[in-house]
Amino acid sequence: MTEDEIVAAIGQLCRPEPFDYAQDERRRGRPRVMLGIGDDAALWQPSRSHRSAISSDMLLEGIHFTRAAMSLEDAGWRAMAANLSDLAAMGARPVLATVALGVPQADGVGQILELYRGLAACAGRSKVEIAGGDLSRAPALTICITVVGEVRASQAKTRAGGRPGDVLAVTGPLGGARAGLVLTGSPLPIEGELRDAALRAFRHPVVRGAEGRFLAASVNVHAMMDCSDGLSTDVDRLSAASECGASLESIPVAPAARALAELQEEDPERFALAGGEDFELLVAVAPRAFTHLAARFAAHFRRELLRVGTLHEGRGVLWQGAPLARLGWDHFTSGADGS
Amino acid sequence: MTEDEIVAAIGQLCRPEPFDYAQDERRRGRPRVMLGIGDDAALWQPSRSHRSAISSDMLLEGIHFTRAAMSLEDAGWRAMAANLSDLAAMGARPVLATVALGVPQADGVGQILELYRGLAACAGRSKVEIAGGDLSRAPALTICITVVGEVRASQAKTRAGGRPGDVLAVTGPLGGARAGLVLTGSPLPIEGELRDAALRAFRHPVVRGAEGRFLAASVNVHAMMDCSDGLSTDVDRLSAASECGASLESIPVAPAARALAELQEEDPERFALAGGEDFELLVAVAPRAFTHLAARFAAHFRRELLRVGTLHEGRGVLWQGAPLARLGWDHFTSGADGS
Repeated sequence: MTEDEIVAAIGQLCRPEPFDYAQDERRRGRPRVMLGIGDDAALWQPSRSHRSAISSDMLLEGIHFTRAAMSLEDAGWRAMAANLSDLAAMGARPVLATVALGVPQADGVGQILELYRGLAACAGRSKVEIAGGDLSRAPALTICITVVGEVRASQAKTRAGGRPGDVLAVTGPLGGARAGLVLTGSPLPIEGELRDAALRAFRHPVVRGAEGRFLAASVNVHAMMDCSDGLSTDVDRLSAASECGASLESIPVAPAARALAELQEEDPERFALAGGEDFELLVAVAPRAFTHLAARFAAHFRRELLRVGTLHEGRGVLWQGAPLARLGWDHFTSGADGS
Repeated sequence: MTEDEIVAAIGQLCRPEPFDYAQDERRRGRPRVMLGIGDDAALWQPSRSHRSAISSDMLLEGIHFTRAAMSLEDAGWRAMAANLSDLAAMGARPVLATVALGVPQADGVGQILELYRGLAACAGRSKVEIAGGDLSRAPALTICITVVGEVRASQAKTRAGGRPGDVLAVTGPLGGARAGLVLTGSPLPIEGELRDAALRAFRHPVVRGAEGRFLAASVNVHAMMDCSDGLSTDVDRLSAASECGASLESIPVAPAARALAELQEEDPERFALAGGEDFELLVAVAPRAFTHLAARFAAHFRRELLRVGTLHEGRGVLWQGAPLARLGWDHFTSGADGS
């Protein structure tokens, strides 16, 4: 079974009947959960006019990061960024985070506080307060973060709203974090600004929070998610949730990823398609609105909204006209280590 | 450093300045986090009339539970109960939970779904939906749960409201879960209903959710928390947060705990004082209101609100007139295994 299949079986256990929000409200007499397992975040309604979004992630030393590749402060930053990115992908403004930490015997207060410095720095950048959590011993350093945010009901974006004909676009070039991961353990002759940019993308990813809220505010953005597992996997998830197929046309490749792929005699676009954890946002946009939206986006953020393909009737992802398998990481079909 | 000292240092990192809610609202122009690190749950204000409470816990195989002592279904139930108990201790009604799961290579879909059956059963009992989470490989089975609930602003109870003279009381006898833990690995001759009750207390604890909301609704309940780390530790935490000292007078001991302690020639009250994870609630009640509140509680729930002592001026916890050290578990000063 793949990770997605296990998640579907879990969803079935946790909510045996298909969800009918109106019926739920009639029966229980008060608002409840509106979007459950399977998207970037869950949504609920704390009052009639508000929506809250929540997302949890677990990161483990040896599986999601190693101390050889980054400092504990960087690991804390990256863990918090990954979670905040899930809220950005819903169009939600983050409010608070909780952090549950499992710490090996060998680590003391110094290590715990170093990790927290990274967590707090990344949270502070997004004006999020770390408001609680838990502390325990564990065989490997384990960071479990939950973030909560707020979003207007009309603006919450899921993976499921894409329509045939929609333009698929991302908020930045891809493959940078994968290049950074390779470079931390490699003597490859990539130096200077290219190397720094790749290591920064891997260790200190930027959350596209303001970009997410900007895109969520447009009725022409039909679906949104973040690129955390590689574009080939993420486009497959978005298009499947939207009951569409997708055609990828061109992949924007981060300069360091291009340099590294060429050095390794790999196809740069394929390298970028498989690279996870860039935390750029992937959107499906009404085709007639794309040019105008991209121009407004560029004016506002001084970065491009980059077209990567389109949604169409059917299923599956095509790249250069041929079916594309998922190139990213799956914890439950891949081997024991990975990103 | 103890766990509490590390948590205090983390709190300092996450919120460097003392918190002024009114100033925060003026500066940011909208409601934010109202109660952060250090209580059973954090509180925030999604809209002017509502409060939400959030709590996260991490449980690890080999540290918080073993498969020898309980099935994965029981481990799931217990993990969810521990979290829901934190919301009960705030007087909050739970709305949803997220579950991040780290699963060892040796476990397959069968084990994951067995654990989820216990999680979903306990959540269902409290009408909570599991609305999202994360799934990852991990060296040991790792369960990180976050629960979110709602509470009226006027009813949210913290650990900090106790006053000198208040009566300390608990919602049930203590030591049952500790007795169950001992009995899972022991041939001690305790049989029949006593043994069953102890194992049930350990493997299938009941969340005092309705009791928590009932107590929270009384203005005479000044402080509340759940008994998760042993009454000696928990009374010390509540009284310290309330800037009081405490005197313990009598400890209600669960029948199985009494039988087991006597068999081991231990003092039953001391056995119960050190026993964690009973998940009964501990309250500080205005002295003139206690008798009436306890009578209403007994009529409503057909169980007693049991007086254990009082708060007084000063610091520290007295038991039978002498200072009482914390007898419960501390992950950061105790050894490598424990409950």
